[in-house]
Amino acid sequence: MTHHTVPSAVATVMEDIGQGAKQAAHRLALASTETKNKALLAAAAALRRSANDILEANAKDLDAAPDLSAALKDRLLLTSSRVEAMARGLEEIAALADPVGVEMARWQRPNGLDIARVRVPIGVIGIIYESRPNVTADAGGLCLKSGNAAILRGGSESFHSSLAIHGCLQEGLAEAGLPPACLQMVPTTDRAAVGLMLQMTGVIDVIVPRGGRSLIERVIAESRIPLFQHLEGLCHTYVDGAADLAMARRVVTNAKMRRTGVCGATETLLVDRKLALSHLPVLVKDLLEAGCEVRGDAATQTVDERVRPATEEDWATEYLDAVISVRLVDGVAGAIAHIARYGSHHTDSIITEDAVAAAQFFAEVDSAIVLHNASTQFADGGEFGMGAEIGISTGKLHARGPVGVEQLTSFKYLVRGAGQVRP
Amino acid sequence: MTHHTVPSAVATVMEDIGQGAKQAAHRLALASTETKNKALLAAAAALRRSANDILEANAKDLDAAPDLSAALKDRLLLTSSRVEAMARGLEEIAALADPVGVEMARWQRPNGLDIARVRVPIGVIGIIYESRPNVTADAGGLCLKSGNAAILRGGSESFHSSLAIHGCLQEGLAEAGLPPACLQMVPTTDRAAVGLMLQMTGVIDVIVPRGGRSLIERVIAESRIPLFQHLEGLCHTYVDGAADLAMARRVVTNAKMRRTGVCGATETLLVDRKLALSHLPVLVKDLLEAGCEVRGDAATQTVDERVRPATEEDWATEYLDAVISVRLVDGVAGAIAHIARYGSHHTDSIITEDAVAAAQFFAEVDSAIVLHNASTQFADGGEFGMGAEIGISTGKLHARGPVGVEQLTSFKYLVRGAGQVRP
Repeated sequence: MTHHTVPSAVATVMEDIGQGAKQAAHRLALASTETKNKALLAAAAALRRSANDILEANAKDLDAAPDLSAALKDRLLLTSSRVEAMARGLEEIAALADPVGVEMARWQRPNGLDIARVRVPIGVIGIIYESRPNVTADAGGLCLKSGNAAILRGGSESFHSSLAIHGCLQEGLAEAGLPPACLQMVPTTDRAAVGLMLQMTGVIDVIVPRGGRSLIERVIAESRIPLFQHLEGLCHTYVDGAADLAMARRVVTNAKMRRTGVCGATETLLVDRKLALSHLPVLVKDLLEAGCEVRGDAATQTVDERVRPATEEDWATEYLDAVISVRLVDGVAGAIAHIARYGSHHTDSIITEDAVAAAQFFAEVDSAIVLHNASTQFADGGEFGMGAEIGISTGKLHARGPVGVEQLTSFKYLVRGAGQVRP
Repeated sequence: MTHHTVPSAVATVMEDIGQGAKQAAHRLALASTETKNKALLAAAAALRRSANDILEANAKDLDAAPDLSAALKDRLLLTSSRVEAMARGLEEIAALADPVGVEMARWQRPNGLDIARVRVPIGVIGIIYESRPNVTADAGGLCLKSGNAAILRGGSESFHSSLAIHGCLQEGLAEAGLPPACLQMVPTTDRAAVGLMLQMTGVIDVIVPRGGRSLIERVIAESRIPLFQHLEGLCHTYVDGAADLAMARRVVTNAKMRRTGVCGATETLLVDRKLALSHLPVLVKDLLEAGCEVRGDAATQTVDERVRPATEEDWATEYLDAVISVRLVDGVAGAIAHIARYGSHHTDSIITEDAVAAAQFFAEVDSAIVLHNASTQFADGGEFGMGAEIGISTGKLHARGPVGVEQLTSFKYLVRGAGQVRP
């Protein structure tokens, strides 16, 4: 295992990984729930046991990159409690119902044929991620539970941390008698490996990119393999003319400020023009007092001198920070038009007591998650009751919204007959 | 509308088609079931009314290509009864339940949030097909019913026929007050248009290729857009050691010979080595007597002098003709291994009275449709009770198996709250 390899060596490594993953996927598709859970629990125990080694590996990564921004450093940093959270995450995945083998539907035909639609694993899943080393455990665990082999390709900054975590996953597989190739980590930081992964059609069934915009855009541009992609979460909260003010204040502040770095955080507040005098000022002041920078249209700027002018770019920006853009719109139709133009098909919410306006917003906003009278911060697999998630898909095929263990499965039809032939 | 256009003109045409489709998709997503059915029924009426014009256009296509093979000519040929079948097909699609708006699931969370998963159209679907002009009506009708705008790109051989059929679809849209851009046909036979379609990310959500292997392979190689692909139907019937002979004879002959040109036709017969003397001879003789050419392994060649030797290539060939390859295998495990090596993940059947063997076959054969004691010719959306289909997908993402109106939809989550914020 070398850190820097010449391209042809990388190609050989990736080909071996691919062949190993295909064989392991076949084995894993037939593994019992007990075996998979045993591997997950043993991996969790190994994480706890190896916490010091993992933190040492993490220190090595941090030392190797002294010039990282504070945000990037925070993503890369592991602590005892973060290692414990990874271990607990694997235990929670073990506790989830096994999606594989579940009958999604079953029906009889007039000719007596009995048709069942049964969940099966997808096969081989490629995860391409950046500096968060915990993705190694989280994504690996979700793939394992759903019976898929995974090829994990972490960022170079977190290479040693991910390698240490991957070692714990391997201990789990070994204890359960599952082949190591069920969860493989690309053993090089050579960027050529990503390009090669994206060409491995016939081996990798789906790629899940996890990271910033430039990573996702590279993956979209280069991939020959289908993606569960999540470009960004440019989420909106629309306060309708018929909104309850107290509810609107509570929800808007939560939607923006509970955690500003998550994809379900609201980035733009849309307010019905009717509420320019009654609601807009207090909503904006709430945000300013919560420590949020507000960039607004002309009307919003009149509310408070701390409000800066919003530019065209602001409407298209996912801040992931304590910044919000605010504008008046002409009722629910105006909100829908703004979201259609600038939104990212992720999560959008309407606050209103008007059932007709809510129904129109539900019907016309083309996003994975559309909420009525609730915070956009609920955009999360756990909050949906789906358990852990590998991300939120903004695509419309296969997986949309939170991608949990069920979304990591396919299905097949099992048809039971008694000798039927087709006339 | 010109037949031959310079590339830059084609690019402009395709861009206009794309923009039109996106706008139409938004409108169609909100169209009522009644409106969509009105368009379908009016299009069916227009097809009947315009039967003579369609047959004239078809004669023009046939005249323009005097050197077509008999099989290709048959695919291209329209008759009064084929036009009637298209009209009836649209009426059947109108009679199907509307998938859009259906609640697939709904549940409550402990915090009172009510979460519904509701079917919505995918958006814009590109159909790239070859010489069968009826695909224009069938695929157009399925897209319309499922609320998707369609961009139809037929083969150059069937250009005039498809154009005449497309005119009838347009009459249907007009009568229902739906925009013409709901169902657009690429108005040129320039092959550059296909290449352009395959690059229209952000406009076309999914491409459905319908045609022979070379078309599908070109689309797979060039497409930047997800596909519902159906590479081929290399289907197997395995007669297990515990098969009932009478049932096996009936099912095998039907699976191969009912219609040899459909994708669910069996191409390879696998017989348990235990049955080499008891069952193999009669199964092979049934096929020979039904007019099927048999290409067999050494054991099969001893059965009858008309059996030709099978080559390695035979196991990998989808004949779509009255030809079958036959070989002995070592029980169900041998059958599974053969199918894993040569199959196309489409449809495979086991004939056995042994429930354990059937369960193993169900678990380990990685195909969209796996049957027990039934003919592979049941691989069909209509036979599954799903109504008309646009094809059988051999991919594992989103749609697998028959692709009917439900498979042409996506979903979104509608979350109803009472002011909930996330702690």
